Amino acid sequence: LNTSIDLDTKEIFSWMEWLAGFGLTKNGGVTRLLYDANWKNAQHALFERMKELELEPYFDGVGNLFGRLKGTVENDKVILTGSHIDTVIDGGKYDGAYGVVASLLAVNYLHKHYGKPKRTIEIVSLCEEEGSRFPLAFWGSGSITGKYKEEDCKELYDTNNINFKKAMNDTGMINSSKKTKRDDIASFVEVHIEQGAILESEKKSIGIVSHIVGQRRFNIRVKGESNHAGTTPMTFRRDSVHLASELISYALNKVPAIDSSLVATVGKMTVSPNIPNVIANEVIFTLDVRHHQESVLNQYCDIIFSFFREKCLQTGMELEIEKWVDVKPVEMNGNLTEICRSVVTDMKVPYKEMVSGAGHDAQIFGTYCPTALLFVPSVNGISHSPKEWTKMEDLRNGIVVLFELLHRMAY
Amino acid sequence: LNTSIDLDTKEIFSWMEWLAGFGLTKNGGVTRLLYDANWKNAQHALFERMKELELEPYFDGVGNLFGRLKGTVENDKVILTGSHIDTVIDGGKYDGAYGVVASLLAVNYLHKHYGKPKRTIEIVSLCEEEGSRFPLAFWGSGSITGKYKEEDCKELYDTNNINFKKAMNDTGMINSSKKTKRDDIASFVEVHIEQGAILESEKKSIGIVSHIVGQRRFNIRVKGESNHAGTTPMTFRRDSVHLASELISYALNKVPAIDSSLVATVGKMTVSPNIPNVIANEVIFTLDVRHHQESVLNQYCDIIFSFFREKCLQTGMELEIEKWVDVKPVEMNGNLTEICRSVVTDMKVPYKEMVSGAGHDAQIFGTYCPTALLFVPSVNGISHSPKEWTKMEDLRNGIVVLFELLHRMAY
Repeated sequence: LNTSIDLDTKEIFSWMEWLAGFGLTKNGGVTRLLYDANWKNAQHALFERMKELELEPYFDGVGNLFGRLKGTVENDKVILTGSHIDTVIDGGKYDGAYGVVASLLAVNYLHKHYGKPKRTIEIVSLCEEEGSRFPLAFWGSGSITGKYKEEDCKELYDTNNINFKKAMNDTGMINSSKKTKRDDIASFVEVHIEQGAILESEKKSIGIVSHIVGQRRFNIRVKGESNHAGTTPMTFRRDSVHLASELISYALNKVPAIDSSLVATVGKMTVSPNIPNVIANEVIFTLDVRHHQESVLNQYCDIIFSFFREKCLQTGMELEIEKWVDVKPVEMNGNLTEICRSVVTDMKVPYKEMVSGAGHDAQIFGTYCPTALLFVPSVNGISHSPKEWTKMEDLRNGIVVLFELLHRMAY
Repeated sequence: LNTSIDLDTKEIFSWMEWLAGFGLTKNGGVTRLLYDANWKNAQHALFERMKELELEPYFDGVGNLFGRLKGTVENDKVILTGSHIDTVIDGGKYDGAYGVVASLLAVNYLHKHYGKPKRTIEIVSLCEEEGSRFPLAFWGSGSITGKYKEEDCKELYDTNNINFKKAMNDTGMINSSKKTKRDDIASFVEVHIEQGAILESEKKSIGIVSHIVGQRRFNIRVKGESNHAGTTPMTFRRDSVHLASELISYALNKVPAIDSSLVATVGKMTVSPNIPNVIANEVIFTLDVRHHQESVLNQYCDIIFSFFREKCLQTGMELEIEKWVDVKPVEMNGNLTEICRSVVTDMKVPYKEMVSGAGHDAQIFGTYCPTALLFVPSVNGISHSPKEWTKMEDLRNGIVVLFELLHRMAY
């Protein structure tokens, strides 16, 4: 690597293991849910480490933790870098956590090597991204950018019927004197694991994300009629499993014809009454569709849903299509990705420009301020699992690229 | 109706409601499970009614109840007629119960009108057919015909962990002095509701069953690989929902091409992990296939399973096919169905010769002695539900046909 810092992978490993210690599960994964004890201990511990590293730490009004390295130019806007601290249940050690550690290490090394930057840099350990505890996601980045207001959490409860706002206040870490919604952020840079197998299979060390996909999720309900599996001739049937299978086959077979980077997934199916010798009267299945262009999502949905409607008419069955997620595609900032490209080119790091198929805090910041998102490879593409793993060299490459990028942006 | 008896539908209605009173549910259905209190009260009450009607009642060694009308010919074999007393949970008032009441009324009217028959007739209220309480079905007819031996129930438990044999003995209705396995039965005649909509839709009053279908049931397990719904390109996927949908579509679309009376049902599906944004690594679905010819079942299964195997090879996924039910088709007795035909023709009752798609006690007797099975229509084809219903005129027609049939057989 062509760079001015010499970062030891052992240091990175020890940081990652230290952070994973807050919420480590018996399977070797991590469970750190918004405002729970593990989450609280992790944010507190990060606060202390920031203090040690002379990065003025503070919490905001929802529990996002910032570490500030003040720049020499007065009244300038902030370069924000970081990721989220929360996990899914029994998730991996790297998802989110790596981005927080990478930012801390990169900024610490910048500080040591080059002293104070011209422009103020803040590291952020965002309180929540996964939506694992309460029925809401991106609470950290959404609160900073003003997508969420404080009252949006008031009526929400977790599966133990604990109120969101109460859980938040009970942490004792809410700083109401700091305005949560910010208007002083110039740009946001996030490093994250890929959570897919593209970089690994193409032997690349860094992914420079050009777009984060738009996502639509639907519940599709097909309603026929229950009947006896033995006494009902085929021509008398309105079999919802039969129809659902035809619709799912069509929808998934259609994908490659529309666009090679379009993906569609039916991950969940509920059959009623779900008895071997009873024709099912109802099937509900989910459809998750993602692409980085809204027009492609529109085209695909139009084609398959008109097929769905036609088939339901033909078979005399009922169809309901309910859209419950509609996230627009977000393009990363052209200037920032150009700087990323020049950094990795200069450093001679094998890289790939790519689309992110997963959602990230960078997509919330992406419509609010110039934003960049960098990926490091995930071994076997595994994520949200104790088996989540990224090689230490790759973790280092990500941190070094972030170091060089922030250097060009802030000094 | 061209017949010598004048049977009042009010009498039939009052018998049916009386019997449904043992185990009536709040939904207007009936729950009468083998050896439970409702079952016991019903068998006891039937015993008393048989006594009143001078049909010598007795229990056998498993709780089947018989009512005997002795014939004048000495040492002749018995004409047995009846059906089962047990129900599914919250089932209907007619399934099984109607056949018991029909036999009682038909034999009682024969006795009143024509006096003692030449040949001995026995009515039977079989203890169990549905398999609703213990993991075993056709216990009543299976014990009489020797398909089951007493020890076959010893190791079985219901969902409350009550032992089968203990539940049986606790009824206090087991008569060990009577041999349960019989070798003195000349023929068996059953009347039952159709549990399908064919008679109703073709405006027929009586179905004469030529065959009871063979049934095969399979668990089919398709195993692929779980992955992230956003970060996994379509070409990297081994999506078990996708493959299962293709297999189910193929299997169900293929049916009409093989035979018009073949039926196949996928009633149950289990998707793992069943999360909207995770590609499913496993789908298990059931396949229930029925036809009255073994060769058709073979042909169909060969064709679809070779397609299943080919598709799994193509997609690199695993396939397991487990057969857990394999019941052979049974043909009803040609001489008896010929008598049935002449009875309904003489009576000018609109009838249909048909195949039974459901299993019945007649299929157990069918391989043991000459057997006939008659159907009456089910309104909307509904069965195993509190909504199960047959019009009183149709219930009467069934009883009158049985009366005429037994007259020709026994006098």
